[in-house]
Amino acid sequence: MWSFVVIGRNASASGEYAIEDLPGSSGRTDVLLRCIRAALLYSHGIRRDVRVYLVLCGGPKAPRTVRVDGLTARFIRPDERSLALLVKKTLARAPEGGLSQFVEIKPGVAVANGGVPCVMADVGEAATYVLEEDAPDLRTQGRLTGDSVFFLGDHLGFQEDTRAALTSLGAKPVSVGPVSLHSEDVVAIVTNELDRFREAAPVPEVE
Amino acid sequence: MWSFVVIGRNASASGEYAIEDLPGSSGRTDVLLRCIRAALLYSHGIRRDVRVYLVLCGGPKAPRTVRVDGLTARFIRPDERSLALLVKKTLARAPEGGLSQFVEIKPGVAVANGGVPCVMADVGEAATYVLEEDAPDLRTQGRLTGDSVFFLGDHLGFQEDTRAALTSLGAKPVSVGPVSLHSEDVVAIVTNELDRFREAAPVPEVE
Repeated sequence: MWSFVVIGRNASASGEYAIEDLPGSSGRTDVLLRCIRAALLYSHGIRRDVRVYLVLCGGPKAPRTVRVDGLTARFIRPDERSLALLVKKTLARAPEGGLSQFVEIKPGVAVANGGVPCVMADVGEAATYVLEEDAPDLRTQGRLTGDSVFFLGDHLGFQEDTRAALTSLGAKPVSVGPVSLHSEDVVAIVTNELDRFREAAPVPEVE
Repeated sequence: MWSFVVIGRNASASGEYAIEDLPGSSGRTDVLLRCIRAALLYSHGIRRDVRVYLVLCGGPKAPRTVRVDGLTARFIRPDERSLALLVKKTLARAPEGGLSQFVEIKPGVAVANGGVPCVMADVGEAATYVLEEDAPDLRTQGRLTGDSVFFLGDHLGFQEDTRAALTSLGAKPVSVGPVSLHSEDVVAIVTNELDRFREAAPVPEVE
């Protein structure tokens, strides 16, 4: 299982934004939405062994986290508008209150009232990485086997307390090359690297 | 200079589609739009030495090609809706008739009434590649230097006559790994590989 955790510093946790102006009204939730596509979808298929967590740290009701699980998710469409509607509807149906466990809103799509700690409790035992500029290249890390979790920032990068939390979790800094890229491109490149590791050492497919 | 040429088999050449339903109404122009972002934008910047060509082969007025040139383009936004509006407005202002040279509609954004031949006349001398499953890995091709052009299909792949034209141009088949990916992810991965080549052998920056 691979998990991508994308942390949106200002991304709206309430879902109260205009679909017609995602960049201007959603705290740049559009960046996170594009990561869903990059992580889960390949040509005419969905990656059944991948989960994406969008940690929404902006506005009322923050932090909240939306989880999309490739194993059970259905009808995940690649376009940004469809993904925006999916996340917006999910947030609108999120339970109120302090419930910090994930609650499934529709097949494969769940929400929790909390941020990184909720994610860590949910992923359980896994090798943990944080994508960062100038960190050692992912290609030099040897073969990734077993469950892996990758933390990424959005266009604003991590807040100091988030970065400190990731350090205390033992997340290993890795990078994907010499240029600072959009989060969704980082997801695509990490996924490609994992595909290549897997091809070299296949694991059984999830049914 | 790197150029990406994305061929949309059914992508609307007239631009007569609904922004609110790109996948359903535009011949999957959404796939091509996402390639603009992946090719041109990195974190807080635009790649000045990259061009993207969207070859629109669907509906009335096909084929037409929209070119976005990172050197002179301004205000290229990353979200799909903004990119859709940019392409739609460009097509609405395209000159009628047989003019097969690129005509600039706004800074860095041009359109031509034609397909692959227009693109080839425009790029001039360059090493030409075609992205294809099961082709030799781009990583094994040695260092890419000089001008390079990469042809990609959309979710439907190439039509037979297009593929034949690419063969006759001497386009070299390359792949980016074991899984068939979305076009925009292929662009991101090829770009990452080019970034890595360039880091190993820097070229002067474009002013």
